[in-house]
Amino acid sequence: MISLTVGLLLSTSAEADPKLPPWAGFSVVDMSHSFAADTIYWPTEEGFKLRVGFEGITEGGYYYASNYYSAADHGGTHLDAPKHFAEGKQAADEVPLERLMGPACVVDVSEQALADPDYRLSEADVDAWENQHGRIPSGCILLLNTGYARYWPDREKYMGTNLLGADGVANLRFPGLSRESAVVLAARGVGAVGIDTPSIDYGRSHDFVVHRYLYERNIPGFENVANLHSLPPKGAYVIALPMKIADGSGAPLRIIGLVPQS
Amino acid sequence: MISLTVGLLLSTSAEADPKLPPWAGFSVVDMSHSFAADTIYWPTEEGFKLRVGFEGITEGGYYYASNYYSAADHGGTHLDAPKHFAEGKQAADEVPLERLMGPACVVDVSEQALADPDYRLSEADVDAWENQHGRIPSGCILLLNTGYARYWPDREKYMGTNLLGADGVANLRFPGLSRESAVVLAARGVGAVGIDTPSIDYGRSHDFVVHRYLYERNIPGFENVANLHSLPPKGAYVIALPMKIADGSGAPLRIIGLVPQS
Repeated sequence: MISLTVGLLLSTSAEADPKLPPWAGFSVVDMSHSFAADTIYWPTEEGFKLRVGFEGITEGGYYYASNYYSAADHGGTHLDAPKHFAEGKQAADEVPLERLMGPACVVDVSEQALADPDYRLSEADVDAWENQHGRIPSGCILLLNTGYARYWPDREKYMGTNLLGADGVANLRFPGLSRESAVVLAARGVGAVGIDTPSIDYGRSHDFVVHRYLYERNIPGFENVANLHSLPPKGAYVIALPMKIADGSGAPLRIIGLVPQS
Repeated sequence: MISLTVGLLLSTSAEADPKLPPWAGFSVVDMSHSFAADTIYWPTEEGFKLRVGFEGITEGGYYYASNYYSAADHGGTHLDAPKHFAEGKQAADEVPLERLMGPACVVDVSEQALADPDYRLSEADVDAWENQHGRIPSGCILLLNTGYARYWPDREKYMGTNLLGADGVANLRFPGLSRESAVVLAARGVGAVGIDTPSIDYGRSHDFVVHRYLYERNIPGFENVANLHSLPPKGAYVIALPMKIADGSGAPLRIIGLVPQS
């Protein structure tokens, strides 16, 4: 009887109790900022707009509300599809779901980045994480916690400037990845890279080398991610589901973390 | 030793092997249609628009692509937030994630609905499902498979008409739920209701009683859902992550099914 029980448990380890969902034992963390009038976009963009279509009592006597939305595809919490910086690579609707779901590896550089807005994730930071938590597994979602989500939606603190247009772009200051760290992460086979700033390249970048290196390899980016501080360095999982925009260079992203309960 | 092993397995049933994600043993099914020029919207709406912002080689010598998107918030695969038909109820950003993730109960009425575009889910249909599969559990995502997803994106077959504007609305023909079935589902405590047609009320509805009954109870709807035929009646799970639109009456929805592997 004992061995039979063990066998049953082993064969159904992912669904031990059919009444429990696969995420039983995990807390669900919302890692998306809302899309609203104050949602942060690149200084060259106008931002997110929601226009009321109808709101009130209809001729039929019942309440009804509907809206129209419009925006640039790279503001707020969003997916960068590889084709954003790599011609012919995957569009937003083509990024495989398998790549958007995986174990979370959270690298916390908030101490350095909050002290230096030009901070970029280094190879040494990746080494330090691996020395403590083991090798970054293939397929993991690498999330860089710079601490900057605490400034959202204060543009000046979050991205270095309130200015719009070219003046705004010239004054961007926020942390990101270094090209060297991107090379290591791609070599590890990460599924995607996420960050809690407007861009995986740091604010002062002019050549966007991190975007170009990763997207050429069909490794997408998640930008303006929220609540990274709620995830442990290792042990959580991420499910990141973008709006399925055909041919999209990017898309709004609803991203959640599954955090093991103690 | 045996009893210790059993204890360990029990205590970590949801994460038997720390290298396996919670969805190990499940296949991931994409249940969203793409947003594109041919995405189906209500006849009164213009549809989804993607406008190229830039596509090509920049002054910096690297490739870059970005877009602008705009649409009504109730076309394509989308969330109906309760506030769509119930004043003061939850907006798109307020629907709790817990309500958007749950076991899938798939009721297949495709035989009846493909023969009769005015077909509405009946109490008897719900009874028949429960007689075969057990009581609909609280928190489940009730998905109605009418078979109409096979017609997407052919508007005439999918919703009964190619016409736009008021003429289109007058000629809508597609299946939905009945008010009586909605009352039973609400009593069961379903988390949400999804369907593979443009509306949870059938096409000829003028009073939208299903919307009004469910949304007043903060039970949201998923409309234009794809691939319901890929889910078993019971045993799969749904994760439905809408674009997080503050104050939204609805939002684009990326919805996936987790289907147990044999």
